[in-house]
Amino acid sequence: MSETRTYVIIGGVAGGMSAATRLRRLDERARIIVVERGEHVSFANCGLPYHVGGVIDDRDALILQTPAALGERFALDVRVRTEAIAIDPDARTVMVRDLASGGEESIPYDALVLSPGASPVRIPIPGVERGLVLRDLADMDAIIAAAKGATRAVVAGAGFIGLELAENLHHRGLDVTIVEMLPQVLRPFDVEMAELVAQRIREAGVTLRLETSLVAIGDKHVVVGEGEQIPADLVVLSVGVRPESGLARDAGLALDERGYIVVDDYQRTSDPHIWAVGDAVVKQRVDGPATPVWLAGLANRHGRLAADAIAGRPHAAVPALGTAIIGLFGLTAAAVGRTERELRDEGRAIRVIHTHPLDHAGYYPGATQLAMKLIVDEQTDRILGAQAVGESGADKRIDVIATAMAGGLTASALADLELAYAPQFASAKDPVNMLGYIADNLAGGEQSVQWHELRARQADGWILVDVRTDEENAAGAIPGSRLIPLDELREHAEGLRGKRVIVHCKVGQRGHTAARLLEQYGVTVANLDGGYLTWSAGAAATGLPTKGHAA
Amino acid sequence: MSETRTYVIIGGVAGGMSAATRLRRLDERARIIVVERGEHVSFANCGLPYHVGGVIDDRDALILQTPAALGERFALDVRVRTEAIAIDPDARTVMVRDLASGGEESIPYDALVLSPGASPVRIPIPGVERGLVLRDLADMDAIIAAAKGATRAVVAGAGFIGLELAENLHHRGLDVTIVEMLPQVLRPFDVEMAELVAQRIREAGVTLRLETSLVAIGDKHVVVGEGEQIPADLVVLSVGVRPESGLARDAGLALDERGYIVVDDYQRTSDPHIWAVGDAVVKQRVDGPATPVWLAGLANRHGRLAADAIAGRPHAAVPALGTAIIGLFGLTAAAVGRTERELRDEGRAIRVIHTHPLDHAGYYPGATQLAMKLIVDEQTDRILGAQAVGESGADKRIDVIATAMAGGLTASALADLELAYAPQFASAKDPVNMLGYIADNLAGGEQSVQWHELRARQADGWILVDVRTDEENAAGAIPGSRLIPLDELREHAEGLRGKRVIVHCKVGQRGHTAARLLEQYGVTVANLDGGYLTWSAGAAATGLPTKGHAA
Ligand SMILES: Cc1cc2nc3c(=O)[nH]c(=O)nc-3n(C[C@H](O)[C@H](O)[C@H](O)COP(=O)(O)OP(=O)(O)OC[C@H]3O[C@@H](n4cnc5c(N)ncnc54)[C@H](O)[C@@H]3O)c2cc1C
Ligand SMILES: Cc1cc2nc3c(=O)[nH]c(=O)nc-3n(C[C@H](O)[C@H](O)[C@H](O)COP(=O)(O)OP(=O)(O)OC[C@H]3O[C@@H](n4cnc5c(N)ncnc54)[C@H](O)[C@@H]3O)c2cc1C
Ligand SMILES: CC(C)(COP(=O)(O)OP(=O)(O)OC[C@H]1O[C@@H](n2cnc3c(N)ncnc32)[C@H](O)[C@@H]1OP(=O)(O)O)[C@@H](O)C(=O)NCCC(=O)NCCS
Ligand SMILES: CC(C)(COP(=O)(O)OP(=O)(O)OC[C@H]1O[C@@H](n2cnc3c(N)ncnc32)[C@H](O)[C@@H]1OP(=O)(O)O)[C@@H](O)C(=O)NCCC(=O)NCCS
Repeated sequence: MSETRTYVIIGGVAGGMSAATRLRRLDERARIIVVERGEHVSFANCGLPYHVGGVIDDRDALILQTPAALGERFALDVRVRTEAIAIDPDARTVMVRDLASGGEESIPYDALVLSPGASPVRIPIPGVERGLVLRDLADMDAIIAAAKGATRAVVAGAGFIGLELAENLHHRGLDVTIVEMLPQVLRPFDVEMAELVAQRIREAGVTLRLETSLVAIGDKHVVVGEGEQIPADLVVLSVGVRPESGLARDAGLALDERGYIVVDDYQRTSDPHIWAVGDAVVKQRVDGPATPVWLAGLANRHGRLAADAIAGRPHAAVPALGTAIIGLFGLTAAAVGRTERELRDEGRAIRVIHTHPLDHAGYYPGATQLAMKLIVDEQTDRILGAQAVGESGADKRIDVIATAMAGGLTASALADLELAYAPQFASAKDPVNMLGYIADNLAGGEQSVQWHELRARQADGWILVDVRTDEENAAGAIPGSRLIPLDELREHAEGLRGKRVIVHCKVGQRGHTAARLLEQYGVTVANLDGGYLTWSAGAAATGLPTKGHAA
Repeated sequence: MSETRTYVIIGGVAGGMSAATRLRRLDERARIIVVERGEHVSFANCGLPYHVGGVIDDRDALILQTPAALGERFALDVRVRTEAIAIDPDARTVMVRDLASGGEESIPYDALVLSPGASPVRIPIPGVERGLVLRDLADMDAIIAAAKGATRAVVAGAGFIGLELAENLHHRGLDVTIVEMLPQVLRPFDVEMAELVAQRIREAGVTLRLETSLVAIGDKHVVVGEGEQIPADLVVLSVGVRPESGLARDAGLALDERGYIVVDDYQRTSDPHIWAVGDAVVKQRVDGPATPVWLAGLANRHGRLAADAIAGRPHAAVPALGTAIIGLFGLTAAAVGRTERELRDEGRAIRVIHTHPLDHAGYYPGATQLAMKLIVDEQTDRILGAQAVGESGADKRIDVIATAMAGGLTASALADLELAYAPQFASAKDPVNMLGYIADNLAGGEQSVQWHELRARQADGWILVDVRTDEENAAGAIPGSRLIPLDELREHAEGLRGKRVIVHCKVGQRGHTAARLLEQYGVTVANLDGGYLTWSAGAAATGLPTKGHAA
């Protein structure tokens, strides 16, 4: 590239600025212009909720780069408070407006990168203008200003950002209510896993109202459902985002039915001189149809890939898994891939595994229990998704599984992973290995039953046997179960010959040993996956009766 | 399997008991006998050092199962204080001796599993009988007894167990000296990474004597090197292990030249009715020759695989990576695969990458710096090994890389991993992603120089340019370097045209930007991998001058 090329980038944060810096490293001579409508570039969107709660004390810590510093180091022409208002793909120009002066300029480009992100949805309800949203520093400042002197806050939407905000408003001392239309928090999790997060939120003293829609925002209250009022000095809307694809649409670029920009594997849009990345773009997924994925890692990664493609070093993106995580009131919840809910809706044949392992060896102090879930393709044993919730170590396990998915490992092959073990970090059989063991057993023909399938099986005449101890059973049991502690099961096995039996324990592990035993006595047997703990979470989430006594 | 088969297992801990329980789950009718020479089965070897230091308070917590409980649940015939003293492979019998009564019994078997482990080496020096070792609970009790009233301890050997013991004796209030023959601690790490652990040990107040051999143990002292005495009320030897393969040898089973039992992919020895697993067995490795790997995860895994094979469900083991970890004085050090040292000794063409990322986003409180290292096959871009040292998050990154290796991902593909990101857990570009970015750049032809190669390059006329700031340079610089801060480099670039330049910054990141810039001005340029931090660690480890001033 000997002639001087001009690259224009719209949006100066995660995707945009990653493209700009990489372009500079690949092309020292190019003219690189970054236009950003807001006050700041390169800020830490993901940190915004934590400054609201004072966890991140220093506001400036959220501003990772300034236009001046980027100018000095990367010779970037960074223009803040400058909006791109029109693209002429034929002329290859973009019209930008200086928001301070109102002055406009048409900038010719050789390549254009769009990373305009997505903006919070404002639902069409009375008083919506009183609702705050959180996307940038100005929004954050507005929430903090509103929180001063306020005592009661309502957060609408129990997605990642809504929950982070609820936690941080609670940290500030506000009385917080979350209202969520759906019957669960955090859609990337299945209901029985999300329930663990919901319980933690409630234990922390935040009110969580599921299956509750916000219908109006008043001056000092909100109205939900059939007209109930909830007092609120401060209302935040966090009910989803909409792609900022207006410019792209007007320029005639291909969008999907939801308005997200369509790109090829090299981040190129339907126009050969325009690339797009980040939250405004629809992404290919590993299993299933293309979807948006609003995550900073992908925005950064794709920004670099767009730069590579523009500079003549094309490198294809891999389909997205959508690995996501939240830390909330001391709990971590992480997920990757697809949910059981989605896959069952699609009619996919899947195997599901729940476990409740300790994050590290139980004999070493401080071990805490995780709840884990693995979703596996029944035909191929491929991993389709995983979820983990716990005090510690959930991030590690989901990262490991995400990597296994990227490497195309089967679920059974998780048993062979050599994960670093010393007692303060893991167990000799890491929780991920254990998922592999269980997957291997299922692949070998062992039967399990999900918590939501149990009632139908019982109705169909299967006997439910609780193999836990007397004490465990007395503390809470599944309706209709019969108690035979595992260590006495051999004596009762002959009596069950020929019958159909579901065994269950607390987490599934003793159930497995029980199932192996009974099978060899000619019993048709299935193990209740995840045991009493998973069943209880599912029951609590869906309103099944959770107490009962063994016959 | 309708007839009753007899399975005998020698060694009732990690590998042996895993085989026994799995065998029971696969074969309810078999007679399963576990013989264990020691007092206990199923104890937590890996926890022993931590009871010495009181970190694990309750001794009983280390005993995970008892013969009685295993009898009840798994109908196992578990015999402690019983030693297997001879195997007759032709007759398929094993002779066992009750160590209490001295009574002997010959037990016929259909299948025999050996999991006898490895025993600590006692070096042939005067007074060696005064040295304690640590393998089981009795050893641990002896160390604790000796530590009572003692004030000074010497630990010989700076491997995992030696260092864990040193830390725990220090926790008990003893004045601890570690003596190690080699020039570094922890052989699975390269010297510049091990140096970080060594520094931490010294900072904690433990004396570390490298390149120092123990030559004698006296009553109240040890003698090292040329005759120097070090006072010691308590001496622990942790200088390696030897396989307990005497029985196997006497039975005519194939051993390797170091005396480890040789098995096939299904853990079967050279005798078709005898299987072997665990520390006494030599393991196939992913890259390089077969070696022993003394790790609990593999012992457990292979115990289960032996059971599967015996029960007629053969499932091949995968070659071992050898993922290992230690927590020491608040620092974590983890490694997987092969070291640079080994690979260079073998003459392999490799690329090496060092980074110093934060474990989570810098703008979120509590971030700490990791030191990471990735070793890559130059021809194929395959990952050959990785090491990580830091306060937090090292275990996660090594587990992810171990998984990537298991999945056969290239180093560059680490850039595409979708790892769970929220600011308290990681960065939008996770440290593992960043290793992928750098690997991708190197695969694309960018040049880097290792800390140990720098002097030769300088001698060969390469100019060393420090692109850090004035302040950083003033606080410590590499001898012979010239300072041109990155943000001023463009102005000086023309002056360097045609020259051979090594650039360096603190960690390698600004160096990368500098290198990209200079290259486009016609400079032959290489980036000092890992920057000043890696160079300093390497220099400190090898005694290079670490201070100097820029020209
Ligand atoms: C509160 C919050 C918390 C989050 N937490 C996490 C998290 O923990 N983990 C995670 O992975 N992700 C998180 N995200 C998501 C993550 O920040 C986004 O996925 C990522 O920033 C998307 O990058 P982008 O470049 O597409 O868009 P953005 O980073 O939003 O940048 C787009 C920029 O383009 C500008 N722009 C738009 N249109 C124009 C125009 N016409 N002219 C000029 N400028 C324009 C906008 O002003 C905006 O600054 C969070 C997001 C928010 C808001
Ligand atoms: C102090 C210490 C700390 C460790 N820390 C870790 C760690 O953090 N992480 C990790 O992965 N690994 C660690 N290990 C290593 C791990 O414990 C071993 O890899 C694992 O226990 C090996 O299992 P095994 O079944 O081969 O041998 P072992 O667990 O040692 O069991 C072998 C048993 O066989 C018995 N035996 C031997 N010969 C006979 C015979 N002839 N008759 C009857 N019985 C016999 C022995 O008495 C012994 O109890 C540690 C080991 C020790 C000693
Ligand atoms: C930070 C930002 C300006 C991008 O700058 P950048 O220089 O491309 O990225 P980083 O500072 O992360 O550095 C990465 C570069 O350094 C290189 N690098 C990092 N460590 C290195 C090391 N030790 N040795 C050599 N190279 C190294 C990487 O290879 C990469 O260069 P490449 O893209 O040419 O391969 C942009 O991502 C941004 O604005 N981020 C903030 C907004 C955001 O991401 N928000 C969402 C999350 S809160
Ligand atoms: C513990 C020990 C006795 C083995 O017992 P085990 O019953 O085989 O192993 P675990 O208790 O870990 O349970 C694993 C079994 O439960 C199953 N399991 C675990 N959780 C489950 C769940 N939630 N649902 C269904 N099955 C589950 C696994 O699949 C596996 O069964 P499989 O081998 O038939 O597939 C043996 O490993 C031992 O003695 N360990 C202590 C010594 C040691 O390891 N030392 C070194 C480290 S300190």
